[in-house]
Amino acid sequence: MRHFGDDLASAVKRTGTPVLVGLDPRWEQLPVSLSSGNSDDRSVRAAVYEKFCREVIDVVAPLVPAVKPQAAFFEECGPAGMTALAKTIAYARQKGLLVILDGKRNDIGSTAEAYARGFLGRDGQSAWEADALTVSPYLGADSLQPFIDVASERGAGLFVLVKTSNPGSHMLQDQQLSEGTVYRRVADYVEKQSQLTSGQRGYGIVGAVVGATYPAQIAELRTAMPQTWLLVPGFGSQGGTAEGVAPAFDHRGLGAIINNSRGIIFAHKRPEFSERFGESRWQEAVETATLEMIAQLRAETLAGKLS
Amino acid sequence: MRHFGDDLASAVKRTGTPVLVGLDPRWEQLPVSLSSGNSDDRSVRAAVYEKFCREVIDVVAPLVPAVKPQAAFFEECGPAGMTALAKTIAYARQKGLLVILDGKRNDIGSTAEAYARGFLGRDGQSAWEADALTVSPYLGADSLQPFIDVASERGAGLFVLVKTSNPGSHMLQDQQLSEGTVYRRVADYVEKQSQLTSGQRGYGIVGAVVGATYPAQIAELRTAMPQTWLLVPGFGSQGGTAEGVAPAFDHRGLGAIINNSRGIIFAHKRPEFSERFGESRWQEAVETATLEMIAQLRAETLAGKLS
Repeated sequence: MRHFGDDLASAVKRTGTPVLVGLDPRWEQLPVSLSSGNSDDRSVRAAVYEKFCREVIDVVAPLVPAVKPQAAFFEECGPAGMTALAKTIAYARQKGLLVILDGKRNDIGSTAEAYARGFLGRDGQSAWEADALTVSPYLGADSLQPFIDVASERGAGLFVLVKTSNPGSHMLQDQQLSEGTVYRRVADYVEKQSQLTSGQRGYGIVGAVVGATYPAQIAELRTAMPQTWLLVPGFGSQGGTAEGVAPAFDHRGLGAIINNSRGIIFAHKRPEFSERFGESRWQEAVETATLEMIAQLRAETLAGKLS
Repeated sequence: MRHFGDDLASAVKRTGTPVLVGLDPRWEQLPVSLSSGNSDDRSVRAAVYEKFCREVIDVVAPLVPAVKPQAAFFEECGPAGMTALAKTIAYARQKGLLVILDGKRNDIGSTAEAYARGFLGRDGQSAWEADALTVSPYLGADSLQPFIDVASERGAGLFVLVKTSNPGSHMLQDQQLSEGTVYRRVADYVEKQSQLTSGQRGYGIVGAVVGATYPAQIAELRTAMPQTWLLVPGFGSQGGTAEGVAPAFDHRGLGAIINNSRGIIFAHKRPEFSERFGESRWQEAVETATLEMIAQLRAETLAGKLS
C-alpha cells in the first residue's frame, strides 16, 4: 500500500533535494519559439502548454522529486486545456515524478468527495491521477474530511492552505482568536490529521502550505506541526530565500518541499540567464536554475548533510 | 455594458422567483433510465451528465432565473466531464438562464486572474462562459481582487463564501476576532466591493454565499450587506426552509437567490414524488418540485408581493 508521506520522503531522499518545480504555463512568458503561433486559439494554447510542460519535465525529472502543475492556467484554455493537464500529469508520473496538483479545491460532503475521487489516486482510480492536491480550509473540518478519507484509501496526499505567501494572507489567516491566530488553528487541525495518518517515516498524508515569504511563521509552524509535510511556495520571484525557508526543515533535515515556478520554468527571462542562454536554449536555463536552487538549499536539508 | 447585479435582479423580476436550481449530477441518484449504461466509463458518465442536465434545463428554464452547475461532478469525469460542463453551461445560457458556476476557485495574483479569465465572460471572452463563479476567501483580499477586476471588465459576477451551510463552518467562519466573527470580516469586505461595483439597481457584482441553515446569521448578514446579492444554499435536503431564508431578502423583497439542488433535480427520489411520478416521469417530478419551491418562497419575495 502506497503512503504519500512516505513516498515524498523517499523521493526527496532519492533525489537529494526538496525542490518542487511549479508548472505554471503563462502564455506571455513562454519561449518565443513555442508561443509564436495563434495565441487566441485556446486549443493551440493548450497544446503548447502541454509541449512546454513536457520539455520542462524532461529537464527536471532526473533532478527533483516532484512537480506542481497549476490547474488555473490549463482551465483557462477550456476543455482542451484540461486534456493537456491530464497528459502533463501522466507524463510527469511516467518520468518518475510525484505530482502535486495545485487546484486549491474545497467543498462539502459528497461534493468534496467528488473532487477527491476525481483528482487523487493512480492506476485508473481517478481521472487526473495526481499524487496530491492542494485544498482550501475556509469551509471547515467537515469539508476536509472527505478529501482525507479518499486520499487515505488511495495512498494519495493533500496540502491544506495554512499561511500563504501573499501579503493579503493577513486579512484572515493572521487574525487573532482567543487561543492564537486563524492560521494556527488550521495548523493544529492539520497536524492532528497528519498524526492520524502517519506512515513509516513519521509523516502524515495531510501537508500544509506555508509561504516562503514569512520565515518567522515558518519556524512557528514547523514546531507546531512536527509530523506534517510543509509545501513552501514563494521562493525566488516572490522573495523567499534559502535562508528564509531553512526553518521549514525538521531535525532530520526533511519535512518540507520548496516550490519554485517562474524562477525555474521561465529562467530564460531572468537577467542572469537571458544573455547566457537566450530564448532558444531555454531548456538549459531551466536546468541551470534548477541546479542553482538545489545548491542553494543543499545546506538546509538532510540530503545536503548526507551528500 | 452588462452588469451582473442588474442582470440578476432583472432575471428574478422577470421570472418572479429567486429559485436557483443546482445542477449536481450525482451518478448514484440519476434516474435509472439514464444511468443503466456502463457506469465505470468516465466518458459515458460525462455524456449522461450532460444529457441529464439538458433535460433538467428544459424543464426549469421557463420557471427560474438561473442555474448553478457544480464543477466537482463534471471534473470527476476527467476531460470528457469538462467538455460536458462547457456544453451544459452553453445550453443553459442558450435557454435564457444565468449560469453561476460553483467552483469555489481561489488563488493569488495572475493565477487568480487565469481562473477568472477562464470562467467568466460571454461571447467568446472565456472558455467556460459562466455569468458568475463562486470563490473562496481564505487567501485574502489580494486573492479576490483579480477575480473582481476581470468580472467587472466582462459584466460578470462572483459569490464569495461568507458563512456556509455545513456544521463545520464553525471551525473558522464563526471564530471571534476583536471586532466580530471571521465571517463578518469577510462580509464587510464583500459589501465594500459590492458598493464599489454597484449597478443601476443598487447591487454590486460581488455576492456572498450564506447558508440557509443559519437563519440568525442570514438576518445579521442581510443587514451588514445591504447592496450585496446573497446566494443561499442548503434549502431542502440540508434543512433550510422558506421561513428560515426569509431574512435573506431585503426591503424590496429582492437581493437573494435560494439554491436547491437535490430537492429539485432528484425530486423523483423524494417520498412524496416517487410514487406519484416514478422514475420514468422524473422530469415531471423536477417540474413539480420547482413549482412547489417557487410557491413556498413566494410570500418572501418582491415577486410574491407583485404577483
